[in-house]
Amino acid sequence: MNVPLDIAALGARAAAMIEELAAISATPDGLTRFFLTPEHRRAADLVAGWMREADLGVSEDALGTVRGHWHPAGPDAPRLLIGSHIDTVANAGKYDGTLGVILCIIALDEIRKAGLTKPFGVDILAFGDEEGTRFPTTLSASAAVAGIFAPASLVTRDAEGISYGEALIAYGKNPDDIPAAAYDPNKVIAYIEAHIEQGPVLEAEGEPLGVVTAIAGASRLSVTVTGEAGHAGTVPMSMRRDALLGAAEMALAAERIAKADAHGMVATVGRVHVEPGSVNVIPSRVVFTVDLRSGSDLSRREALERFEREAHRIADLRHLGVVISAFHEVATVPCFRDLQLRLRNAIADLGHRAPTMPSGAGHDGQAMSKLCPIGMLFVRCRGGISHNPAEYAAPQDMGLAAAALVRFIERFQLPQLSEATGGVET
Amino acid sequence: MNVPLDIAALGARAAAMIEELAAISATPDGLTRFFLTPEHRRAADLVAGWMREADLGVSEDALGTVRGHWHPAGPDAPRLLIGSHIDTVANAGKYDGTLGVILCIIALDEIRKAGLTKPFGVDILAFGDEEGTRFPTTLSASAAVAGIFAPASLVTRDAEGISYGEALIAYGKNPDDIPAAAYDPNKVIAYIEAHIEQGPVLEAEGEPLGVVTAIAGASRLSVTVTGEAGHAGTVPMSMRRDALLGAAEMALAAERIAKADAHGMVATVGRVHVEPGSVNVIPSRVVFTVDLRSGSDLSRREALERFEREAHRIADLRHLGVVISAFHEVATVPCFRDLQLRLRNAIADLGHRAPTMPSGAGHDGQAMSKLCPIGMLFVRCRGGISHNPAEYAAPQDMGLAAAALVRFIERFQLPQLSEATGGVET
Repeated sequence: MNVPLDIAALGARAAAMIEELAAISATPDGLTRFFLTPEHRRAADLVAGWMREADLGVSEDALGTVRGHWHPAGPDAPRLLIGSHIDTVANAGKYDGTLGVILCIIALDEIRKAGLTKPFGVDILAFGDEEGTRFPTTLSASAAVAGIFAPASLVTRDAEGISYGEALIAYGKNPDDIPAAAYDPNKVIAYIEAHIEQGPVLEAEGEPLGVVTAIAGASRLSVTVTGEAGHAGTVPMSMRRDALLGAAEMALAAERIAKADAHGMVATVGRVHVEPGSVNVIPSRVVFTVDLRSGSDLSRREALERFEREAHRIADLRHLGVVISAFHEVATVPCFRDLQLRLRNAIADLGHRAPTMPSGAGHDGQAMSKLCPIGMLFVRCRGGISHNPAEYAAPQDMGLAAAALVRFIERFQLPQLSEATGGVET
Repeated sequence: MNVPLDIAALGARAAAMIEELAAISATPDGLTRFFLTPEHRRAADLVAGWMREADLGVSEDALGTVRGHWHPAGPDAPRLLIGSHIDTVANAGKYDGTLGVILCIIALDEIRKAGLTKPFGVDILAFGDEEGTRFPTTLSASAAVAGIFAPASLVTRDAEGISYGEALIAYGKNPDDIPAAAYDPNKVIAYIEAHIEQGPVLEAEGEPLGVVTAIAGASRLSVTVTGEAGHAGTVPMSMRRDALLGAAEMALAAERIAKADAHGMVATVGRVHVEPGSVNVIPSRVVFTVDLRSGSDLSRREALERFEREAHRIADLRHLGVVISAFHEVATVPCFRDLQLRLRNAIADLGHRAPTMPSGAGHDGQAMSKLCPIGMLFVRCRGGISHNPAEYAAPQDMGLAAAALVRFIERFQLPQLSEATGGVET
């Protein structure tokens, strides 16, 4: 270990950069920074300026992704990709995405200042469309980098009727250049992202940093339960076909199934609509959603089957009808085990154990996994709160995260990761 | 038994009268007949005409209640009151209320034609404000007859801003005459009402007629469950405070408590509001209603306490908050046991057993119970459907109900019922 690390100083630097970037917003109060907007431009320019100050080469691709290049072994050496995103949701927190980009810049700056060289290069990627808040697309910037950009995205429109393609041209880009944004998979080692956890696990564990095992796959179901309306006073309990009580049992079944799972599965019934919705009428129809996520696709699929069986069993016992339809399905993206181990070792170097957990939220790594192995570092955030102005990560934790990235890159050894050793799902 | 009875003919007559009365509506399609409207006037006139054809004396009180008098023992003899209501809900069925009035007219006509005399008189009462659909009052016509009319009703207003008092004057009445509408409790024997069941019990039992044990008391609760919102993907199951799952358990607890009750208790969760109501956010707040009814106030109060205990137990286990507030409370009105027995005997005379059951819906008998003992006869209705154009009672069942009223009056013996033998709640 050659790079000297002053955690407190790194944390203070990260905190100052967070504030500077958070000042760039479409709204005077709060933080709102959408893809391909003037705010995106200003944020990209600020990030590019930081990269230049860190003595990195800087470029920008056809989707506005700002790239910072550290190439001690020349432009043809294999590349380690690191990064995150600089777009936000509406009325966002300051840390989601931006923290990852800032940590990468700080880490490479420290590495460069220490005079370290490696037989590979590192590119920082500051993506602009992770949240999917402007257009009905998401991860399109990282998809372009991974070579899987969907051209159909260009004709989608934002709330004001502006198409993605028009917005891109107004941003000074040429859609014809998108294919050239893709990396050559043969030259890429891995993609590593640091991100706030957006959940409460690290706080509960008392640890500043965690390592992600997988970006959880998700299934969303719409469940319609049909019974029979009736007078709340005149239909005896034994003769009722109450859709709400059936739905209540099904919601509890979803919870039970998730709790019984060993892969950190979560199940959420978030939306419930009851008809007719009168205080004195037995509910005849309930529609509710189930959001089911797991770090294992196999376990998620098994849970879906179990839920379906349970829902039909409950419906049969109560003489109800039930129709279940899936309206959203995203596969799990496992983080490469070898990268998980390297990240945990880097954290151990700093005197911390690193709890592992799946990421329930989506990330650019899902698109990047089509290009190369991925790994993710989580940073503790207060109360697990995210997508909210109350989002907060402590400077000390951010300093540790920057240090962990330094140690990770410092320790990193070629040869390249192989599918055979890395692709194990946990 | 002296009065000869042709059930089929009585049923056919009732069915014809039902159709004639159902033609009087504020709307060309469907049936809507509110209190103190031109439709009320026309219906009252039709009913009065039928009473005259049956050779009954006819009068109308200060609230428009049409009264048909059969006084074989002179005007000073004690009176048995029988009746129901001729107002309807919007888009109503044809049988709710009107059937009871029609059955009374038919029964007294048969009795009179058979030349029967009794040492008491019978008054038919055709009330006009049972449904409470025009003004925010209900049972005001029967309340006046019972001597408990609330003068404050006069200043309530309908949807068009017309006050109850103004409507009454426009109907040709004088509010000052309301006190005179009250019967002298010392001269009244009992009040008996025939009504469609509005529930499915008789149909399930395969019996045309039933006897009501009590008009069920009702409690309505608003239950607010508070937890903590969170990302559906990032908060592990063990760290959640999901308000919806707590509410689901509470709804099932309400069902369990009602089912365990021996007094035909019913519990209904009819309205459920979930916040924030997003597919991918853990519910932070759920507000739902519980409608709890029982033929026994004691059992209802015990059930409320049990529900409260259960709700708090569930909330504690899930680290949720729960606030329960009652927003509606009506006491049970027991039907006098002696009248129940007499009604069952009258039905037995017709070769039928008479299942007993509480009435979950409200009736004029609730107001009339302040004046005298009450009893109720239920008539089977198809599918238990009421307050709906699909409401239906078969002519044969209506014929049996008219016959049961005849036998009940025919068998009725003075002396008057005493509280000591009659007031037992079942």
